[in-house]
Amino acid sequence: MPDPTARHRVVILGGGFAGLQAAFALKKADADVTIVDRQNHHLFQPLLYQVATASLSPADIAAPIRHIVKGVRNCRTVLARAKRVDADRRVVVLDEGEIPYDTLVLATGVRHAYFGHDEWEAHAPGLKSLDDALRIRDRFLLAFEQAELEEDPEKRRAALTFVIVGGGPTGVELAGAMAEIARRAMKKDFRRIDPSTARVILIEGEDRVLNAFDRKLSNRARADLESLGVDVWLNTRVTGVDEGGVEVGDERIASRNVVWAAGVEAQGVGGSLGVETDRSGRVPVEPDLTVPGRPEIFVLGDLAKITDPRTGEDVPGIAPAAMQMGKYAGRRIRERLEGRASDAPFRYTDKGMLATIGRARAVGSIAGIKMAGFVAWFLWAAVHIFFLIGFRNRLVVVISWVWAYVTFQRGARIIVPEHEDERIEEDTPASSGV
Amino acid sequence: MPDPTARHRVVILGGGFAGLQAAFALKKADADVTIVDRQNHHLFQPLLYQVATASLSPADIAAPIRHIVKGVRNCRTVLARAKRVDADRRVVVLDEGEIPYDTLVLATGVRHAYFGHDEWEAHAPGLKSLDDALRIRDRFLLAFEQAELEEDPEKRRAALTFVIVGGGPTGVELAGAMAEIARRAMKKDFRRIDPSTARVILIEGEDRVLNAFDRKLSNRARADLESLGVDVWLNTRVTGVDEGGVEVGDERIASRNVVWAAGVEAQGVGGSLGVETDRSGRVPVEPDLTVPGRPEIFVLGDLAKITDPRTGEDVPGIAPAAMQMGKYAGRRIRERLEGRASDAPFRYTDKGMLATIGRARAVGSIAGIKMAGFVAWFLWAAVHIFFLIGFRNRLVVVISWVWAYVTFQRGARIIVPEHEDERIEEDTPASSGV
Repeated sequence: MPDPTARHRVVILGGGFAGLQAAFALKKADADVTIVDRQNHHLFQPLLYQVATASLSPADIAAPIRHIVKGVRNCRTVLARAKRVDADRRVVVLDEGEIPYDTLVLATGVRHAYFGHDEWEAHAPGLKSLDDALRIRDRFLLAFEQAELEEDPEKRRAALTFVIVGGGPTGVELAGAMAEIARRAMKKDFRRIDPSTARVILIEGEDRVLNAFDRKLSNRARADLESLGVDVWLNTRVTGVDEGGVEVGDERIASRNVVWAAGVEAQGVGGSLGVETDRSGRVPVEPDLTVPGRPEIFVLGDLAKITDPRTGEDVPGIAPAAMQMGKYAGRRIRERLEGRASDAPFRYTDKGMLATIGRARAVGSIAGIKMAGFVAWFLWAAVHIFFLIGFRNRLVVVISWVWAYVTFQRGARIIVPEHEDERIEEDTPASSGV
Repeated sequence: MPDPTARHRVVILGGGFAGLQAAFALKKADADVTIVDRQNHHLFQPLLYQVATASLSPADIAAPIRHIVKGVRNCRTVLARAKRVDADRRVVVLDEGEIPYDTLVLATGVRHAYFGHDEWEAHAPGLKSLDDALRIRDRFLLAFEQAELEEDPEKRRAALTFVIVGGGPTGVELAGAMAEIARRAMKKDFRRIDPSTARVILIEGEDRVLNAFDRKLSNRARADLESLGVDVWLNTRVTGVDEGGVEVGDERIASRNVVWAAGVEAQGVGGSLGVETDRSGRVPVEPDLTVPGRPEIFVLGDLAKITDPRTGEDVPGIAPAAMQMGKYAGRRIRERLEGRASDAPFRYTDKGMLATIGRARAVGSIAGIKMAGFVAWFLWAAVHIFFLIGFRNRLVVVISWVWAYVTFQRGARIIVPEHEDERIEEDTPASSGV
């Protein structure tokens, strides 16, 4: 039980879109706010695929959480990993120690899920963190290097076959970018292989890509992908992933580069609340985003399962929804502390959706207006620049995009070996070495 | 023995400043040129310390070697690690396979040396590769996070004590940058600690920093460092480095962050030539940069030990010297192939030296003119931008510098956990998670 004389303690788990908005909304609240995240940075996930495809650097789409909230003087930031929530004792259990709370904001997001085949992960990394993105980038760039050295045509073909599993926005954006880089950016760089012979296969289980979008736009996206040279396989389910490639039914695709963009599941922490979660681990919440029977615990962002009463559909797991939830929760908490609690439920305002396919190509609908091609792409770019945090990042990203658009090049085509390798190879030159 | 009917094969080990210049100079030569490097990128080492101190991103100072030389149509690039040179059989032995050569250009550079105390490396990383820089950046940023959580004042002090061993350009630049970041960039970010209380200690064995420079400039550099809050310890030799800190004689500095910038040694490959090398493993070369008795083997850059007959001093291990050697060697090889071999020896043109201390502070001498302060700093900036490869990189670096100058901020203050950690913590949120 909280000490009534002490100041109200709000603990926010996760410095993503939802968590940060909640913190901002609590700026003037009479409470001590603590953001706990195991990363020191907020990540602008919508552009993560551009790090994975060597267009942007990690720092361009990330900023230190404590720097972002430095103006929120009643908010401190803790770099730590939460193991679980003890809702009865009202504490968050960390790797080391505990943090007590009076109000808890759970916004730890989701990570990629392998439908019970976690063994696939080693061969088909997902794309959720900067580390994931760098690993995918290294593998993608290394594939061409390996192919250049490979004598066996079979193996060379496997090295130059890229499979992306999952036709959602991330999968579509990855496939488009990879096809473009192979066909354009690397054109003249190799002597023995022709990078434009690389195969990019996008595998989707449903009958269309981007199935959160209008069917017209899905078809347009598919056409755009194919015009970029991407093989789009619809109604196809992956039945196996191993070192050598991917199995779809009785067909096998030999590939050394598989990326997983097929599904997400909520974080473990949500499960420790002792409430029923849905198949993908999301927590069903009340109309005010609190946990049933636990009014002091808010669940936000991708982690929350809530149906929009007006549309009857789930609020989508996208950044705008997370930000709206964060703002709402922060306000509700402040209102409670000021004794003017309203019972206005959370209302999701659909600002529309956008997804890029590649160079000057995108699809989307904003305020009900469907759009595609350059207009959609330009809007996509503008919206993302606008929401990106930090003036420097905005400037650098714009420059990188303009530069890539004009030169067809990618600015971050470097492979930085894992520290592990580095240690093993300490006896060789570090930088300009062999 | 090479097959006389085959085209002449030039193998260049190392895609650093020397190796690239040699390749460019061989563009029109009647030879097949192969650059072998275990990194896929050329690294602009003079700015590496800015990656280590969160000012720049790795991609800003690196570019794919094969992309840099894509215009040199007779040059291919091989991403591989050379184990040794078999000078009698005229082959370079790689981890996998061999590459035969008719002419070999050895430009594998140097790495940090621990004077026979390799066990110090684990606690005092050096700064030679992008991976080194990212490791130092992570440790530097993590130190403040740990201090913020640390209850024990002793340990907090140790976490906020940074020791840089070695008062050469790298050590001076690191110390200055770290002091500035602690005092300015992080000022308002923390709640419990005051980053400006961080201690930055620069340890130098000689009686002055930057001892390759004029004594006046060394003194100025020292004064500038001290005005930034750096403790400069001269005539001090490190006698021990461990997890807990650094030992200098019978004094002990408790520190969790030690960086090694004290010495370099040549790469192992050079040793396999079967010629006498100097104490730091450099290969003494003839006036034409070839190995005594091996006219088909050139040794360039930091790896070459050659005395300038006019000054009686060794040609310094700096980028301009390496570039001049590369150009010279490439020309000599081409001349030989065209049957017009001259015996003009290598002549080093001293274009001067520059070193930054921090914000708008630098020292240097160009064409014999000594300079310090803003002028030197502006010149330093201009020269480095000029030699940086790639228009995009130049633009992004200029913007980052202007931005840092105006805002006192650093653009790349993110911690990306090693892949290892990531694997261990796969069960936690990857990006916005806890």
